[in-house]
Amino acid sequence: MNGAESLVHTLLASGVETCFANPGTSEMHFVAALDRIPGMRCVLGLFEGVVSGAADGYARMTGRPAATLLHCGPGLANALANLHNARRAESPLVNIIGDQASYHRPLDAPLTADTEGWARPVSAWVRTAGSAARVGADAAEAVAAARGAPGQIASLILPADTAWSEGGVVGAPLAVTPPAPVAPQTLREIARLLRSGEPALLLLSGAALREAPLLAAHRIAMATGARLLARMSNARIARGAGRLPIERVAYPVEQALAQMAGLRHLILVGAPPPVAFFAYPDKPGALQPVDCAVHVLSRPEQDGAAALAALADELGAPAVALPDAGPRPEPARGPIGPEAVARTLAALLPDGAIVVDESVSFGRGLFANSQGAAPHDWLQLTGGAIGAGMPLAIGAAIGAPGRRVIGLQADGSAMYTLQALWTQARERLDVTTIILSNRQYAILLGELANVGANPGRTALDMLDLGRPDLDWPRLAGGMGVEAARAASMEQLADLLAASLRRSGPFLIELML
Amino acid sequence: MNGAESLVHTLLASGVETCFANPGTSEMHFVAALDRIPGMRCVLGLFEGVVSGAADGYARMTGRPAATLLHCGPGLANALANLHNARRAESPLVNIIGDQASYHRPLDAPLTADTEGWARPVSAWVRTAGSAARVGADAAEAVAAARGAPGQIASLILPADTAWSEGGVVGAPLAVTPPAPVAPQTLREIARLLRSGEPALLLLSGAALREAPLLAAHRIAMATGARLLARMSNARIARGAGRLPIERVAYPVEQALAQMAGLRHLILVGAPPPVAFFAYPDKPGALQPVDCAVHVLSRPEQDGAAALAALADELGAPAVALPDAGPRPEPARGPIGPEAVARTLAALLPDGAIVVDESVSFGRGLFANSQGAAPHDWLQLTGGAIGAGMPLAIGAAIGAPGRRVIGLQADGSAMYTLQALWTQARERLDVTTIILSNRQYAILLGELANVGANPGRTALDMLDLGRPDLDWPRLAGGMGVEAARAASMEQLADLLAASLRRSGPFLIELML
Repeated sequence: MNGAESLVHTLLASGVETCFANPGTSEMHFVAALDRIPGMRCVLGLFEGVVSGAADGYARMTGRPAATLLHCGPGLANALANLHNARRAESPLVNIIGDQASYHRPLDAPLTADTEGWARPVSAWVRTAGSAARVGADAAEAVAAARGAPGQIASLILPADTAWSEGGVVGAPLAVTPPAPVAPQTLREIARLLRSGEPALLLLSGAALREAPLLAAHRIAMATGARLLARMSNARIARGAGRLPIERVAYPVEQALAQMAGLRHLILVGAPPPVAFFAYPDKPGALQPVDCAVHVLSRPEQDGAAALAALADELGAPAVALPDAGPRPEPARGPIGPEAVARTLAALLPDGAIVVDESVSFGRGLFANSQGAAPHDWLQLTGGAIGAGMPLAIGAAIGAPGRRVIGLQADGSAMYTLQALWTQARERLDVTTIILSNRQYAILLGELANVGANPGRTALDMLDLGRPDLDWPRLAGGMGVEAARAASMEQLADLLAASLRRSGPFLIELML
Repeated sequence: MNGAESLVHTLLASGVETCFANPGTSEMHFVAALDRIPGMRCVLGLFEGVVSGAADGYARMTGRPAATLLHCGPGLANALANLHNARRAESPLVNIIGDQASYHRPLDAPLTADTEGWARPVSAWVRTAGSAARVGADAAEAVAAARGAPGQIASLILPADTAWSEGGVVGAPLAVTPPAPVAPQTLREIARLLRSGEPALLLLSGAALREAPLLAAHRIAMATGARLLARMSNARIARGAGRLPIERVAYPVEQALAQMAGLRHLILVGAPPPVAFFAYPDKPGALQPVDCAVHVLSRPEQDGAAALAALADELGAPAVALPDAGPRPEPARGPIGPEAVARTLAALLPDGAIVVDESVSFGRGLFANSQGAAPHDWLQLTGGAIGAGMPLAIGAAIGAPGRRVIGLQADGSAMYTLQALWTQARERLDVTTIILSNRQYAILLGELANVGANPGRTALDMLDLGRPDLDWPRLAGGMGVEAARAASMEQLADLLAASLRRSGPFLIELML
């Protein structure tokens, strides 16, 4: 057994059964091993940003790591932006990065790069395999590191000679560290300050945003008057009928400050303190009031969901009914706008849908106005590195088969990783992508106005996606994805409904 | 004057007049400054790999650095693969990387990343600006660092507050270090060993591959019997009628070893010793014979072109006629293949054309068989990080207006940075891209066979670009580039000739 074979066996034994891949020459022994050893689902991406974003989406829906297969330092480099997002999402993920043979590296052949140096900023665990005999044990450690609480990124660099040399040994699966419990003392202290009646807010993150912990948070809020917010950007939120509607920290600094105004106690549930996405002259970076005390119910590596349930019990908070979401709306007619799109989504989202939201500027109204939908999960751009959405949709669809994925996709961001559409077509994934086609970096035109400048010719050249206009149905068709344009809300509703009745991907360019 | 304005003034004063950009919020003050201060040509790329590859192409054709404008760590990350190629090409290049305000960085907002850590492996010079007052001086240093010999990458990270704060000071242009001369003693020693008549080879790189130094090298070869080779991958080679045809080190290891067989003296002219692109079991990594002595005529930071001329004089080598390239061929007819494509290129390339070669597996025959063309420059993938070609074409077209750019483009590589087509359309660049559409990672199918494996289902899933087939005319049309398919050599010749008569970009998908 060579090192590559021991690696495949070890990954499978450790529960890693999906590999998003863009291989190169130094990975051919790994590819040959995958060919010989059954059990790994391999999914090709035509660019590494697709590969890493798909692994992130898979982790968000399954809670388990997929492997990526990347080619040398530059292949890793292409994956970094979506690895950055995955790190912010606390997604478990194992990178397998093929690299120059150990004895070839000093010769500095053209593809040689600082693979470890590029991996480290996104990885909680980085190792370059030293020998074929150690690859299996290294891989088992990588999986265990990725599956720790919270999920994190492990990067195993595989010099070609450690893959092709004989002497591989399958690594035994290692125990995964579960999330640590919150101490009873902490629960009592948080309960005491919540009982004080002083203005308090629980900021929820991670696993606290699933259905059951949200209901526990609702009991706490009803019993104590505390308010609830989710972070600005979240890996996954359970929403829709029968789930607690929860607002998020607003992106515009003024709105976020207003959300926090008057607060005396900020209680963090797996979240860091809230901060502005960017700094602006004369605006604060920390969003809670200066005289607000910050408390920690659970750290990211602790079990925030269990802590919320225990806190509700500690408070003796009774079960309470959810606010009535009202009847499911009808699809919107009339002018195209964020509220209308949200209403159409709420009307048509199928039960169990997965919404992947990379809607950027246009989408700020989509979240608040779509709560009346059937039960669904909502996935966001967690690290601000655009180009996550269409790859996330791949991973979500593979990780949660049978659930339709709806992508809300800004056009400028979609261009970053449009190769994802090809993988959606090849794997016949049930993904409907709605391109919100405003033909601008609209968020930046807003930011430019914020700095007091009217856009002149140079600025428009850099912030305008027109001249020439992108034609998304042609782009999608060129990669095998059927597509159409919607120029009215009625067309959007018809196309969205039709896409839900079919299997495989579909793309709608919504002309804003 | 704020820091951003001082930066724009300093770049212009230092001779940086082109900026390839994909800006974000933290760069809005720089964008506003570009709007107010005339003189900088700004070119938008819809992905940062387009931006960095274009800056590389610009540098190769002008010898001067363009600026890139990148958004935070993830924007830099997306640019890294083509920065890796630019570093291997010794291209001068100045990255301006906007980042979190200095006081906002500790808050770890979502986009915060290790920008310096990611920049360092590709950059000879990295600095994070510390204040608005220092930005101008920092930028002048960055340009001087980039323009040193050989060209290199300078990365200036610009925290948003150093851009927006008042107190900017324009940096005075700094003296650029010219290439160091080669010592007369070295020339005499190399001349002595060349006169020995022992088998010798000059390995040429960088500026030694322009028209005049190639002629000097030819004089040396004719006078001494030494052989000449260019490196496997080169930033730019002068070729075609009236230029010395020079072969390159072959990619397949066996062929490269055969090229070097029997050699006693390897003389490096700006080149490192030749090495295999990858290691293979039981094949050597260094390509020269073990008993071959390695000598250095010029190091990369020295003036290799002048050294060749001085060496020819030292040898008293007379001017000699170039080998007769024969008549310009006619465009090929009949079956599609590398030699036929090379013949059609040789027949139709216009005088002064710039060929950007990212043809990978199919293209190995294109170089040797196209020497009979009109004079042209040939640009290659220098670092092996695929996705360079179409961005390089942008930069070459902007850096050398009036000269037609012909891209020879493998389909798998083209998918990495297909967003480049949109910039070609927006800027109406005179670029003809020929997609060599074999619908495979053909090089990898060859490499898989090398490791003794027959591709099974899993391997084919990862190495085959079909299912669904990419439709390049639709992809190009979706980004505003006119395109057509060629299913025969006759159609290729007709479409290529027609594209040369028009202005603006055109894409031909050659169905292999």
